[in-house]
Amino acid sequence: MYDIEKIRSEFPILAREVNGKPLTYLDNGASAQKPQVVIDAITRGYAEEYSNVHRGLHYLSNLSTERYEAVRGIVARFLNAGSEDEIIFNSGTTEGINLVSYAWAAPQMQAGDEIILSTMEHHANIVPWHFLRERQGVVLKWIDPELDGSLDPQKVLDAITDRTKLIAITQCSNVLGTVVDVKTICTGARAKGVPVLVDGSQGAVHMPVDVQDIGCDFYAITGHKLYGPSGSGAIYIRADRQAEMQPFMGGGDMINEVSKEAVTYAKPPLKFEAGTPGIVQTIGMGAALEYLMDLGMENVAAHEAALAAYATERLSGLNWVNVQGHATGKAAIFSLTMDGAAHAHDISTILDKKGIAVRAGHHCAKPLMEHLGVAATARASFGLYNTTEEVDRLVEGLELCHKLLA
Amino acid sequence: MYDIEKIRSEFPILAREVNGKPLTYLDNGASAQKPQVVIDAITRGYAEEYSNVHRGLHYLSNLSTERYEAVRGIVARFLNAGSEDEIIFNSGTTEGINLVSYAWAAPQMQAGDEIILSTMEHHANIVPWHFLRERQGVVLKWIDPELDGSLDPQKVLDAITDRTKLIAITQCSNVLGTVVDVKTICTGARAKGVPVLVDGSQGAVHMPVDVQDIGCDFYAITGHKLYGPSGSGAIYIRADRQAEMQPFMGGGDMINEVSKEAVTYAKPPLKFEAGTPGIVQTIGMGAALEYLMDLGMENVAAHEAALAAYATERLSGLNWVNVQGHATGKAAIFSLTMDGAAHAHDISTILDKKGIAVRAGHHCAKPLMEHLGVAATARASFGLYNTTEEVDRLVEGLELCHKLLA
Repeated sequence: MYDIEKIRSEFPILAREVNGKPLTYLDNGASAQKPQVVIDAITRGYAEEYSNVHRGLHYLSNLSTERYEAVRGIVARFLNAGSEDEIIFNSGTTEGINLVSYAWAAPQMQAGDEIILSTMEHHANIVPWHFLRERQGVVLKWIDPELDGSLDPQKVLDAITDRTKLIAITQCSNVLGTVVDVKTICTGARAKGVPVLVDGSQGAVHMPVDVQDIGCDFYAITGHKLYGPSGSGAIYIRADRQAEMQPFMGGGDMINEVSKEAVTYAKPPLKFEAGTPGIVQTIGMGAALEYLMDLGMENVAAHEAALAAYATERLSGLNWVNVQGHATGKAAIFSLTMDGAAHAHDISTILDKKGIAVRAGHHCAKPLMEHLGVAATARASFGLYNTTEEVDRLVEGLELCHKLLA
Repeated sequence: MYDIEKIRSEFPILAREVNGKPLTYLDNGASAQKPQVVIDAITRGYAEEYSNVHRGLHYLSNLSTERYEAVRGIVARFLNAGSEDEIIFNSGTTEGINLVSYAWAAPQMQAGDEIILSTMEHHANIVPWHFLRERQGVVLKWIDPELDGSLDPQKVLDAITDRTKLIAITQCSNVLGTVVDVKTICTGARAKGVPVLVDGSQGAVHMPVDVQDIGCDFYAITGHKLYGPSGSGAIYIRADRQAEMQPFMGGGDMINEVSKEAVTYAKPPLKFEAGTPGIVQTIGMGAALEYLMDLGMENVAAHEAALAAYATERLSGLNWVNVQGHATGKAAIFSLTMDGAAHAHDISTILDKKGIAVRAGHHCAKPLMEHLGVAATARASFGLYNTTEEVDRLVEGLELCHKLLA
């Protein structure tokens, strides 16, 4: 059973007040709060077990290496990767996608080669491909969402030509909450020999993920949205794609031999992990993923689906509120605008006075904002610890905004 | 006054035992331990003040942004940078040097252009330049240390030709402890129009640093060696060099506008900081640097100089121990080999039984090891909390190694 009060008690920050009100944290799409087990793992990592990893033989070095490397298996289990060698640690999705862009895409793409993106992508899954456009003439092809915010997988597949070298697509829009049928895209793309990168920044937070079932080549996650530390992350890269990659960053740990004249590289995954890694934050990410798996991602998904249904119903009662995106099965992410002069920033500021944290702005998704014809939205994004009472608070807060701003 | 007992009490891990003995942590060159103020800053960051930065208007977002951005000023003060806009946050020196390699060096270097390195460089300051050799035909020119481990600045300057585009050099060897006169190198190089990157991974830990006085173009530091969190770091890049750089990683925060057709970039430093940064570890790094400045880096340097003198004297009494590097003013870093069959790994393993943590191996400096003609050393590297009693323990441990292995 999903004991929401017990879960909430495990996140210390949720007990605090903001502006004299209980914190109603609805900014999970930007970053999630951390359970005590994650904070404890970090504290223990520094106060009792700290050393650099990989390079030592002494007790603390062996201990920290063991704790750190164990996370590779945890991430592999979380994503159901075929092998933990397919898990590469990094500082988050941005670094993960840049790794793919620099180490896999750039060396093999020619001017005129095509990358297919959806218009719903986050800048992290846009700007690295714009680099390839700017620097080597790669062509970006965009697939717009439907009017309800859904994305038609067939339109993605229909855009494939013999110049298509990659499809880079989110599993879940951070603005609309749309869940993309990435499995259908991967199946169709593989039949045509086109690799698929899935941005799992939001997807992995809200639903069980099985990269083998999806059939993707690359799947990027970011620890801080998964209730883990900032600066933690990982990317799944299927072994055959790893074999096509040159190294990205150079430094310690990723080499085999270095002389004045030459360098040879370590085998993956170390080949793609240069220098002293984010030791303790990776250990903290492991604790976060264990926490999620103990809860059960299917239970998290069910809890959030109930929240999404309740929020949809409550918000539909406010006929001066426009929710962007109504795709079936959308995640509990609600980007709002209000009729009249109410600017998203004003909405956020008023809600903040009531202790309600939402985000206002373009949500690092400017092409989508342009497509939607809005400059900014106020976004309430729910997480595993949110409640229907918090939905009610949001609605009350919006009613106050309407009163003050309309 | 430098109260070593008080200082030691501020590092919780130093109270622990290893293998039934008090921990004698002499692996600071690989990574340093963390004072309670750093651990507290991290805990507070997650348990009370956490949110994503830059993108929000709500209370916690403003608070975490304020805490995070304040660190830019702390780093600028620590390095005496002219402006905090010259400080770019990252995950450590490896990412810092790769930023320079990808964003500044690669776009402007042609086949036959030259980079001057010392043979003492760490792989983090070698492999990124080997990439340029492999990928675009840049020539690496190596300056060997003298017999005592010192580096003659004039030899570096004499190696400059009209093809020299960069000098990349450490301020302090992580193997020999040699302190390089980077100021003389920078002064001479600037007169010839050659930029200088200084790897401050070790240097900034052991002495006061003033990047304006040194006159370098780039100065990289890494938080985890500076008693801060893993996965934290920064690089000083002088404004005129920043103006010559293209972006490195693409994603959120580093853009100005993004559309389907085009992208424009934010001003530095944000231009070089893509995506959600290492929020809490950067805040932790700030706490570490404040801690160091409160102690006073000149006091840390004096304490470590006394330790180095004492260790030099004690080790010179062991005529079966060979210390690599005797340059005047060397840091308290002692890479050892022993006469006879004793392998560095065996030395490390025996010392570990006595609770003494040293590192054995090539220390990510393979060209130097080849130059020295040794496959591996055992390295005792001292930090601000080490004591002369710990030098004595090391000597006792080495005597045991000699007895068991000779």
